[in-house]
Amino acid sequence: MRIFGIDPGSIRTGYGCVEAGGSRHVLVTCGAIAAPAGSSFAERLHVIHETLSRVLRETSPDCVAIENLFHARNVRSALQLGHARGVAMLAAVQAGVPIVEYTPAEIKLAVVGYGRADKVQVQHMVKLLLGLTALPKPFDASDALAAALCHSHSGTAALARRSTRSLPRHLKNWRDYRPATAGRQAP
Amino acid sequence: MRIFGIDPGSIRTGYGCVEAGGSRHVLVTCGAIAAPAGSSFAERLHVIHETLSRVLRETSPDCVAIENLFHARNVRSALQLGHARGVAMLAAVQAGVPIVEYTPAEIKLAVVGYGRADKVQVQHMVKLLLGLTALPKPFDASDALAAALCHSHSGTAALARRSTRSLPRHLKNWRDYRPATAGRQAP
Repeated sequence: MRIFGIDPGSIRTGYGCVEAGGSRHVLVTCGAIAAPAGSSFAERLHVIHETLSRVLRETSPDCVAIENLFHARNVRSALQLGHARGVAMLAAVQAGVPIVEYTPAEIKLAVVGYGRADKVQVQHMVKLLLGLTALPKPFDASDALAAALCHSHSGTAALARRSTRSLPRHLKNWRDYRPATAGRQAP
Repeated sequence: MRIFGIDPGSIRTGYGCVEAGGSRHVLVTCGAIAAPAGSSFAERLHVIHETLSRVLRETSPDCVAIENLFHARNVRSALQLGHARGVAMLAAVQAGVPIVEYTPAEIKLAVVGYGRADKVQVQHMVKLLLGLTALPKPFDASDALAAALCHSHSGTAALARRSTRSLPRHLKNWRDYRPATAGRQAP
C-alpha cells in the first residue's frame, strides 16, 4: 500500500510518500514545496497545487494522509494555512485519491509514542522507521512522512514502542529525548 | 471591462460578473455554488473549484475581485473559510486572470457608502446599480457582485451617493434604511 502524506503550509508545504508492506516501510519520495521568493500569495497556492498534482501523478498512491488542524496561532494564520490546505486537498481529490485526516497529536502519538513530541523527535523517528541513512529534511517533509506513517499504523502505539529499541541506550523512551534545539522547537 | 467578483465560503461560494462601461454596469451572470448535501469537505472544495473554473472560462473576465478577510468568528471557521478562498484564488490564477482584494468594509463603502452596511443594504444597492428588476439572490451572489462593483469604483463614494437618488424619497441615505430583517442581519 502506498501512502502519501501532506503537511500543508502557506510558506512551505511538505510531502512524502511511503510504501507500506507488512511491518516494513520504504521511502518513495519526499520534499517540500516553496514558491520562488517574491511570488504573490495566489502564485504560491498555484505552485503548491501544481507540484502536489505532479507528485501525486508520479507516485500514484492509494491514499493521502493530511494533518487535520483545529488550532492556529491566530485567525490570520489560520486563514493562510486554510488556503494552502485547501489547494492540497483539491490536488488529492482531483487525483482521485481518498483523503484521511489525523490531528497533529494523533500523528505524534502513532510515530513517536508521545502526542506532544517536537519536530526533531518526529524527524528522528521517521528516519528510524524508514531505515534512512540521513534525517529527512526539512521538517515539512518529515512531518508529511509522519502523517503517512501514522495512517499505516493508525491506532497503535506499537510502532513507536517497537522502534525505540533503536534509540541510544541511555534513552528509555522518547519523552527523555531533548535535542539541543529543544528550546526553540519544543511547544 | 469585465469584472468577476467572488464571495468565498465553505458552505456556499457566491460569484458574479459585471460588464463595466463608463458609469454604466451590466450584469453578465451571478450565482452561488453549493455542493450536494452529504458531500465531504474535500468534495465541496472540488465543486467550488470546478464551477468557478467553468464560469471563469465562459465569462473570460479581465480581473477577479475577491473579499480579503482578516477576521472570522474563530480559528476553526477561519480555517474552513481559508480552504474555500484558497481554491477560489487557484481557479482565478489558473484562468490567468489577475486578482484584486478588498476588505468587506471597502466593498460596503464603495457600493453602499457606509462601511458597516448589512447584506440586505448591499443587495438593494447592487440591484439599483445594475438596473435589475429583482434582487440578486442569495446574499452570496449579491456580495460577489458588490466586490466586482467595488473594483470598478474603488476609492470613490460617488457611486453610492449618485445611486441613492433612486431610493424612496423618505430615505435621505442608506444609513436610514432599516429592512424588516435588520434585527437578524445588522452588525
